[in-house]
Amino acid sequence: MNRRMVLSMVGRVVLLEAALMLPGLITSIIYRESCVWSFAVAIVASLAVGTFLTVAFKPSSKVIFAKEGFVIVALCWLVLSAIGALPFYLSREIPSYIDAFFETVSGFTTTGASILTDVEGMSKGLLFWRSFTHWLGGMGVLVFVMAVVNNLSDRSIHILRAESPGPVVGKIVPKMKETTRILYIIYIVITLLDIVFLLIGGMPFFESLVHAFGTAGTGGFGVKADSFASYSPYIQWVTTIFMLIFGINFNIYYLLLVRKWKTAFKSGELWFYVGMVAVSVVVICVNVYPLFDSFGEAIRHTAFQVATVVSTTGYATVDFNQWPSLSKTILLLLMFVGACAGSTAGGFKCARVVILIKKARRELKKLLHPRSVNAMRFEGKSVDNQVVSSVSSYLTVYIVIFCVTLIVISLDGFDTETNISAVAACFNNIGPAFGAAGPASNYAAFSPFSKIVLSVVMLFGRLEIYPILLTLTPSTWVKK
Amino acid sequence: MNRRMVLSMVGRVVLLEAALMLPGLITSIIYRESCVWSFAVAIVASLAVGTFLTVAFKPSSKVIFAKEGFVIVALCWLVLSAIGALPFYLSREIPSYIDAFFETVSGFTTTGASILTDVEGMSKGLLFWRSFTHWLGGMGVLVFVMAVVNNLSDRSIHILRAESPGPVVGKIVPKMKETTRILYIIYIVITLLDIVFLLIGGMPFFESLVHAFGTAGTGGFGVKADSFASYSPYIQWVTTIFMLIFGINFNIYYLLLVRKWKTAFKSGELWFYVGMVAVSVVVICVNVYPLFDSFGEAIRHTAFQVATVVSTTGYATVDFNQWPSLSKTILLLLMFVGACAGSTAGGFKCARVVILIKKARRELKKLLHPRSVNAMRFEGKSVDNQVVSSVSSYLTVYIVIFCVTLIVISLDGFDTETNISAVAACFNNIGPAFGAAGPASNYAAFSPFSKIVLSVVMLFGRLEIYPILLTLTPSTWVKK
Repeated sequence: MNRRMVLSMVGRVVLLEAALMLPGLITSIIYRESCVWSFAVAIVASLAVGTFLTVAFKPSSKVIFAKEGFVIVALCWLVLSAIGALPFYLSREIPSYIDAFFETVSGFTTTGASILTDVEGMSKGLLFWRSFTHWLGGMGVLVFVMAVVNNLSDRSIHILRAESPGPVVGKIVPKMKETTRILYIIYIVITLLDIVFLLIGGMPFFESLVHAFGTAGTGGFGVKADSFASYSPYIQWVTTIFMLIFGINFNIYYLLLVRKWKTAFKSGELWFYVGMVAVSVVVICVNVYPLFDSFGEAIRHTAFQVATVVSTTGYATVDFNQWPSLSKTILLLLMFVGACAGSTAGGFKCARVVILIKKARRELKKLLHPRSVNAMRFEGKSVDNQVVSSVSSYLTVYIVIFCVTLIVISLDGFDTETNISAVAACFNNIGPAFGAAGPASNYAAFSPFSKIVLSVVMLFGRLEIYPILLTLTPSTWVKK
Repeated sequence: MNRRMVLSMVGRVVLLEAALMLPGLITSIIYRESCVWSFAVAIVASLAVGTFLTVAFKPSSKVIFAKEGFVIVALCWLVLSAIGALPFYLSREIPSYIDAFFETVSGFTTTGASILTDVEGMSKGLLFWRSFTHWLGGMGVLVFVMAVVNNLSDRSIHILRAESPGPVVGKIVPKMKETTRILYIIYIVITLLDIVFLLIGGMPFFESLVHAFGTAGTGGFGVKADSFASYSPYIQWVTTIFMLIFGINFNIYYLLLVRKWKTAFKSGELWFYVGMVAVSVVVICVNVYPLFDSFGEAIRHTAFQVATVVSTTGYATVDFNQWPSLSKTILLLLMFVGACAGSTAGGFKCARVVILIKKARRELKKLLHPRSVNAMRFEGKSVDNQVVSSVSSYLTVYIVIFCVTLIVISLDGFDTETNISAVAACFNNIGPAFGAAGPASNYAAFSPFSKIVLSVVMLFGRLEIYPILLTLTPSTWVKK
């Protein structure tokens, strides 16, 4: 383990965070808010810690392996959240540090689970920072570092792999730096488009910014107690569409950009995603139709809620906790699946579901024709058996972590529905769940211990388990 | 597909069922019950259908492959349940045929989910038959056929594999017929022991028989509305221990019988099972302790409930639906795991959990040391990659069927807890669930459609998915 390299990398990211908190500070200056001082202190702390780490741990060798990649990513996200929580805590707008940490982790991991009971009473500067963490966490903070820093070895692919969601992360173009730049440019452009569409709909500038950040990162933090319920149908539709757009693998957009239409539209994952959304919308719409005055209203709310859950964003236009059993069950299952790999969305990812189903189908064929050999193909390429095997192991680890968390959370004594959906909503980075943690409620009632556990589970979800798990494994830290 | 052989085999099993209904008929004669006629008609029907199938479809070739094995098992279980439901339906003690079918499938699959609202008002003959189906289904009806029929080719291993639970079914001794005989002798002996212990505790003879059948098959049908609540602590402890005993792989008993102590006690699955039970009992006991008057009472009820859920039996001494959240969560997770492969219990099986966890651990090691090669060992032997792969595919198929059933069941409009636990309890052949399908309640309130779906899911669970799934696949039926 190249510890010096790991710590120096963390130092760099912390230095970057000082810069990233500036827009929040500027916002609070514009609105003449007292929280400006808490930003200033947090930025100074960030600079101090960052400088210390980069100066004290000058790496003698820049060589890193998969192991270092995982640990760098895990530590960076932890430290980012710990420091990012300072403005909330120091301003006393979130008096408990554990709550502030929960809220910040929820931001960076694009979960959107909140402990705030009065979001409309918060300072604008803090609301900006809160939603900005969504935008940063969506595409990845380290991917951002790689896009802007110059002296990158191609070894940094390990960091990209560890931070980006999905079982088959690769470079879009041969150069690492180019790949990360392209991803971020696409990300910025679509975010800007979202902002423009929201402004056209008459949403104030500040709210447009904040909501576009939350949509782009598929996070879900907003500025209103009723989330999107009081906005116009136009704005609700725009957000529905952009939530779905940010749930698609960004490679697809790159393929469209370079006019490889055929390859783009042959994506098995894309069609699975589109089909799943379409079927869910139709079934739920039929199921909830009696609750609404018109078909237009029913389809709008259904589409919004399906989009918010499947893209793991977490905005809401209605309290879907009140919906009939069938609709709630479908939404609960969608929570687990999530959207596409290589998007900003969380969840188990459509790509993994497709691969596992293909694997199971191959296995069934083998039962009938024991001597048949079937290679598996995904996205036009044949899939290595090692990838298939690691995807199914991912499912096992996923289930184990889910069960352990569920047991721990159930100590708080909520009902089964609340427990299962709250763990699902945090693990899959969605935010609102059902029951006591439903869209009309929040996570304030959980015990501090549960909040810490749920924070860790959010990180497990966003970083896809292995970085955190390996960082917690003692043997990872053994010196060679 | 050797259709003639399949149908002739089904015919033989149906003929056997006529004989198996005789004890029920005799019981109703002894107690001078009017349901004797419904047994008589069912037996005649059974003889007629059985004779027709065996006479009309004399197989020209007795060769069968894995495919035929699966289809034979699936069809036999369906037909057995359809005919076995007749006594309930004809006697009008269960007026709806769908209900009678549900109850019979629940019996044969050793689920123990009931639609009866007044079990104490049932005829003794029908109660006997109801519990006897548990005993027959536990070790397998076709395994029984193989143990008693003489002209068996060694090809029947395909049938044994299709009907016996667990990922690694094999012969105990080289000869198929010997293997099945040994299994049944062990089964009969332990059942007799259970009866003796119950009689010693002062339980009436009829009740001892019925409860021993339910315990041996890990079924759960009883004769009292409060299941085991009103029996003495001695009887409750005896049943706890026997439920746990029937959850252990029968190979272990064979190994003990031939004095291979070391091999028996080195079983990884056995230790996983024992450890899981022990930890669950300790944690739940601490959690529910305040609900009881003494430690003895708390540990007795905890042990009973853990044993009933983990062995997928389904008896109860308390309404565990009223227990605190932590205990309910642990019981819910135990429902999914189930007991050991090669036992009469249902669920996903400890063996599979152990294999999947070992696989995941190997994968994690690979992440850190990409070039390492680790062979996997289970129960002292190295495990073929093909077996590991099929176990993980089993998990996928298991989850898919679970989700589809959950969506369908949620049409009935029960709450999430009821839906999830009811599907879990039927799929894993347990019986009582939580919420509206809890131990103090039953499945009568579900719609006829849901009852049919749950019946199919019970069969999916007992036969471990593939036989039913392949029988429902059109390509299975194509003639060569």
